Amino acid sequence: MIKNKKKIFIITGVAGMVGSTLLPKILSKKNSIVIGIDNLKLGKYKFIKKYLNKKNFFFIKLNLDKKIRNRRLNSILRDSSLKELWHLAANSDIQSGVGNSSVDYRDTFLTTYNILNFIKPYLNKNSKIIFSSSSAIYGNIGVNITEKSAPFKPESNYGAMKLASEGLLSAYSFSNKTKSFIFRFPNVVGKNLTHGVIYDLSKKILSNSKNLQVLGNGEQCKPYSSVDEIIRCMTFLIKVKNSKLVNFYNIGNNDKGIKVKEIVRLLIKKFNYKKKIVYQSKNIGWKGDIPTYSYSTHKINKMGYKFRLNSILALKKTIKTLSKKNLF
Amino acid sequence: MIKNKKKIFIITGVAGMVGSTLLPKILSKKNSIVIGIDNLKLGKYKFIKKYLNKKNFFFIKLNLDKKIRNRRLNSILRDSSLKELWHLAANSDIQSGVGNSSVDYRDTFLTTYNILNFIKPYLNKNSKIIFSSSSAIYGNIGVNITEKSAPFKPESNYGAMKLASEGLLSAYSFSNKTKSFIFRFPNVVGKNLTHGVIYDLSKKILSNSKNLQVLGNGEQCKPYSSVDEIIRCMTFLIKVKNSKLVNFYNIGNNDKGIKVKEIVRLLIKKFNYKKKIVYQSKNIGWKGDIPTYSYSTHKINKMGYKFRLNSILALKKTIKTLSKKNLF
Repeated sequence: MIKNKKKIFIITGVAGMVGSTLLPKILSKKNSIVIGIDNLKLGKYKFIKKYLNKKNFFFIKLNLDKKIRNRRLNSILRDSSLKELWHLAANSDIQSGVGNSSVDYRDTFLTTYNILNFIKPYLNKNSKIIFSSSSAIYGNIGVNITEKSAPFKPESNYGAMKLASEGLLSAYSFSNKTKSFIFRFPNVVGKNLTHGVIYDLSKKILSNSKNLQVLGNGEQCKPYSSVDEIIRCMTFLIKVKNSKLVNFYNIGNNDKGIKVKEIVRLLIKKFNYKKKIVYQSKNIGWKGDIPTYSYSTHKINKMGYKFRLNSILALKKTIKTLSKKNLF
Repeated sequence: MIKNKKKIFIITGVAGMVGSTLLPKILSKKNSIVIGIDNLKLGKYKFIKKYLNKKNFFFIKLNLDKKIRNRRLNSILRDSSLKELWHLAANSDIQSGVGNSSVDYRDTFLTTYNILNFIKPYLNKNSKIIFSSSSAIYGNIGVNITEKSAPFKPESNYGAMKLASEGLLSAYSFSNKTKSFIFRFPNVVGKNLTHGVIYDLSKKILSNSKNLQVLGNGEQCKPYSSVDEIIRCMTFLIKVKNSKLVNFYNIGNNDKGIKVKEIVRLLIKKFNYKKKIVYQSKNIGWKGDIPTYSYSTHKINKMGYKFRLNSILALKKTIKTLSKKNLF
């Protein structure tokens, strides 16, 4: 049994890139107890392995697509109350949900639905819920997207189920008087990649196929932000005084982004790749791909946070960390 | 087997107020075949009974909260393609989903998810999907709400699952290149009521209890639009040329609404009710109730449609039709 003075943090998707980067930061907080949940489908065990010996870390391998019934989870939580839920578990592989709504329904929507229902008895008046939403909820609406750039027209099931989760969380916050923070992520890059353009291309390069097949014509242009900064930004924003009951933020830098072609160039250089690069003729990587967008970050800037790394610096920093060991 | 020249219309929630009012209008179209689906949980058999002898009407009693497998439905649809899906089935009892997200999840979200997946093989390039969303997606954001009044902060699970359905439908439209029309309904009133303030209060008055208990303090002030006009408006808007792939409309009149107290006065007069009226002290009828809102109807007006009946006229017209027979 954990005494009440202990602060309970739950991180779903703890073995993903954001979860595993956030984990040590929360473990090092005074009196923190961290329950990390992951089904290890996209998340990687090796990203969290080194924390398993920490006394204040409990890892639970669990699918959240069913009603949550887990004895160990219940026993850790017994008589405790929740300080923060970082709900990061989701399908992060947008393409896998194209034309098949069941993937994002199960791994994004149902995970949100079930974790929110599960934590209800453990909420107190200071509990906070942090949710990783996505720029994909906006759809293909171009540049300088603000938090109010409605109507939302998600083109992928990924975006649709992130929007659905936002709705669930909003109603939940009002119903339980629990503060929630909905962060609409851009493309996030960093050390523990589990998906995305750098991950895919690097794996292709290292797998020694006869050429490098790139999705789309290479002209797709999107902003990338570093996972370290994404976490710093969220940690800053959830502490802002006088925040509302439900808070929405576009987080990331506000530059115009980097073309896929440029990323290819950086990776070729990194891995000293000599084979042929094959682009497609279409301007999108997959159905539902948003080829170009950028954020207005006016709101987070006004709250006092500014991203230091622009897209190219975030990418270069990430590419430096790439290794066979981390990717495979 | 139905020949291809026949036009197939599916109406889910056909035995609800909107569905049962829409039904005869579509049955009377040339070459139309109408498949009406309802689980008769909130919808009423008596509202559609008189159409059952029509040769072009097929009623199927079916729950849409599971993957749809229905032999009769398949045999009617075989070799046909769909002209319009009017997806009106949903939980319409907002209060029943308060504090229990499973009601709206099942009856609003899953119905949308399942019907969209089911109709996929029957879509053609001219198929249209019409969805009854709700003002509840906006949350408590006051007056003059436009289609772009974001961020959306639904306070009820009802609103959350309508927003989730909008997201699903948007991604579906992009993925299948099928036009969709998302109509955000106000309070709709008319002959075949199945829920709502007039329905509840009238039933209470007619059930001969010792006084009339009103939810909230009576100051809640919302606009009401007539179901006939709602249908006329939708029928008009789905025919507008050059509509987008995904279209969002606030439909209804744009007046400031009518207070619950005024509705009580009208009903007392109608039924010659002499007993005591008991109001609550809180300004909302239930948790998640939005006590005051009004629409901007600039967008539908610009498209060429204007509601003729304001709230008070729509209410009076409805109250005229009230009878024990229709209510019980």
